[in-house]
Amino acid sequence: MPIQPRTLQGFRDYLPATAMPREWIVDTAKRVYRSYGFRPIDTPALEYLEILTGKGSDETDKQLYSFQDQGGRDVGLRFDLTVPLARFVAQHAQEVGLPFKRYHIATVWRGERPQAGRYREFMQCDFDTVGTTALTADIEMVLVVCDLMTALGIDAFTVRVNHRAVLNGLLDKLGLAGKSAAVLRALDKLGKIGPDGVTAELANTAETTAEQTAALLALAGLEGDNDAILAELKTLVAGNTTGERGVSELHELLTAVAAAGVAAGRVRLDPSIARGLDYYTGVVIETQLDELPDFGSVASGGRYDNLASTFTKQELPGVGASLGLDRLLAALEKLDRLPAVSTPADALVCLFDAERRDAYLALAAQLRAAGVGVEVYPEAKKLGKQLQYANKQGFAAAVIIGGNEFDGGEAQVKHLATGDSATVPYDGRDAGAIAAEIRTARDAE
Amino acid sequence: MPIQPRTLQGFRDYLPATAMPREWIVDTAKRVYRSYGFRPIDTPALEYLEILTGKGSDETDKQLYSFQDQGGRDVGLRFDLTVPLARFVAQHAQEVGLPFKRYHIATVWRGERPQAGRYREFMQCDFDTVGTTALTADIEMVLVVCDLMTALGIDAFTVRVNHRAVLNGLLDKLGLAGKSAAVLRALDKLGKIGPDGVTAELANTAETTAEQTAALLALAGLEGDNDAILAELKTLVAGNTTGERGVSELHELLTAVAAAGVAAGRVRLDPSIARGLDYYTGVVIETQLDELPDFGSVASGGRYDNLASTFTKQELPGVGASLGLDRLLAALEKLDRLPAVSTPADALVCLFDAERRDAYLALAAQLRAAGVGVEVYPEAKKLGKQLQYANKQGFAAAVIIGGNEFDGGEAQVKHLATGDSATVPYDGRDAGAIAAEIRTARDAE
Repeated sequence: MPIQPRTLQGFRDYLPATAMPREWIVDTAKRVYRSYGFRPIDTPALEYLEILTGKGSDETDKQLYSFQDQGGRDVGLRFDLTVPLARFVAQHAQEVGLPFKRYHIATVWRGERPQAGRYREFMQCDFDTVGTTALTADIEMVLVVCDLMTALGIDAFTVRVNHRAVLNGLLDKLGLAGKSAAVLRALDKLGKIGPDGVTAELANTAETTAEQTAALLALAGLEGDNDAILAELKTLVAGNTTGERGVSELHELLTAVAAAGVAAGRVRLDPSIARGLDYYTGVVIETQLDELPDFGSVASGGRYDNLASTFTKQELPGVGASLGLDRLLAALEKLDRLPAVSTPADALVCLFDAERRDAYLALAAQLRAAGVGVEVYPEAKKLGKQLQYANKQGFAAAVIIGGNEFDGGEAQVKHLATGDSATVPYDGRDAGAIAAEIRTARDAE
Repeated sequence: MPIQPRTLQGFRDYLPATAMPREWIVDTAKRVYRSYGFRPIDTPALEYLEILTGKGSDETDKQLYSFQDQGGRDVGLRFDLTVPLARFVAQHAQEVGLPFKRYHIATVWRGERPQAGRYREFMQCDFDTVGTTALTADIEMVLVVCDLMTALGIDAFTVRVNHRAVLNGLLDKLGLAGKSAAVLRALDKLGKIGPDGVTAELANTAETTAEQTAALLALAGLEGDNDAILAELKTLVAGNTTGERGVSELHELLTAVAAAGVAAGRVRLDPSIARGLDYYTGVVIETQLDELPDFGSVASGGRYDNLASTFTKQELPGVGASLGLDRLLAALEKLDRLPAVSTPADALVCLFDAERRDAYLALAAQLRAAGVGVEVYPEAKKLGKQLQYANKQGFAAAVIIGGNEFDGGEAQVKHLATGDSATVPYDGRDAGAIAAEIRTARDAE
């Protein structure tokens, strides 16, 4: 009895048609992160359990994949890249030096109840600057996200920005400072459950008065251009130092990103954004695709005061964000921006004649040397079968050279999208004309 | 009491200075694999335990990280990428189509006893062609390894090739067909334990006669150029169909790789190579760095008849190899081929004057648009401190613009390797001259 080949619930295989755009997104993120001097690191998937527990929420504790290893140690699979970063910086701060700018693109695991679009294993693409309180790093976070979206070919996006100090300042003024966690959790749901839902939750979990609720909803509901919202916020937090610092930093940030060339309208103040996580203390951002406003944020993050307090007495303030790789992949799929291609090579070299296999392999080597990726069909099957394979995989072109053509010094390059063929010269040594024709086919797609 | 920040025994953090060349090797491997039409896939780190057990050796079974998940399922962390490939192809053959060329670069886990240079978590970089018996795919495996070494800047390497049918043919002739596993395991150790050690092990585990041992050692000890060894092999296996097929395929393979442009001497017959794994049935290869002959193979693989017999009745022959990423990294380190650099950006833009932060950020954006990666120091600390940071991280250049220079329309670009500075024009908008000077500094390194 064969064993049934299957994956665990909540886990998935990535077939080439999905793995290719996923790799492209990751490579693009790396390129942008690197252009800002963020450096790659990697940490183990498995950590001592005590490193991981109690660091996220009760929920992440429950979702932890944990077990005893062969040596009887309690271990767990990382559920995010922030806790490993905290452990890493506490352990290696001296060696890596501060400020420490790192990116980390790796898999994490959470035993969540599986639901549509949610997996128990997913990839995170984080970047952080640790060891500085300077707003420069917050500004850069926004610039990185803008560059990243642009590099991914996304023109219509909005980075929504808020500041926890503004929220905290207002909570202070409203006498709600002690209930900030419950209040922010409720406000964070405004987009999902609407003002009535938030009102109910506020009454329920934070026992706010009608007046307090109204003030909170007024804040979260502020609309208009950045200048108008800034002016309103200034009035709302007036007299509260924390709130005033928040407003002033938001103002600085907006001025700076404009100076760095970000188009007006790309970055917008949105006082309703809180980012539920308790550890955020300053600027917070979310990134919305304008064509898919209900899709949720595809890049989110913020500033925190102390990354690694459970591991070290050294205060490690920082700021960073995470690209939602799988959500973005789903979005690009929905927007029909992903090519239906399953091969990274441009052309299939058909094996017309088994006797000439070495000549086809030599041609393929010449084409690769000319910068064109090609696959050689391994067997001399019927041409129709090879072309069927080429179409299924999504090659741009097929190179066909039969015995006569070899002798006649020419090759056929079939453009698979149109079915047209071009005949180009090929003397067995110089594949330049074939390479050029393949490029034409590829660029026409 | 803070929790001690530490990693599990046998696991390691990759700091930027190591993570950067590691990423470079992975990216290079991807590029080469893709140029042959190998397509990326990914599979879950966790699999049903029954998928993983009994697939490698008793040893891999013992080394498995396995546990019960929250749903009471027996699960395990993959210990290689071959078993997941077998499961994947059995599950998705219809969808992906055959022949299926895939690469898979991912982490695997083995609870081995930790020893120098061996980790419990490591990355594998595999490529395979599944679903064809054609020698084209075997030849390509060798070509891929040659291209990969060259792309990694390694000039002195040797791909050692053998064929299991040659070994099996000879064992047949020697009356040792039933003991092939024990014999091949012993022969595989020739490089490590020498002829005397192999003689002892053969007597011990395969109970070979003196005559048999002598014949086996004569085979494994064959030396000379490929033609000479081929002639000897032909004589040794004469009359045995299996052995003769092996010799003929080796001959074809050597002719083909030469035709595809691989320099003479790069690919050498080595009858001592067996590759212990039982499932190899045809061509087998190992790759040796000529400057580090004792370092072991950095890329190994071979042909197998049936990849996924435990998951499907469909016969899935294939051929593939694996790049030894971490061994290669260690080798390049030993050969002093890795730059002592901890940052992917070319230059540090010093923040000379906090009041002008936005101007520095704008300059950085201009430099990135000109294709130069730069990091902006986040705080206006003393210049000496910023330059110390720049030197520690290994930037090629530092861009220094004080207030006077801003007003005077110029910038200083300090070449950090030499300490020399160049003054170039900068009007606040066109950073072309600064970018060019940074490139000069980078390319001089």
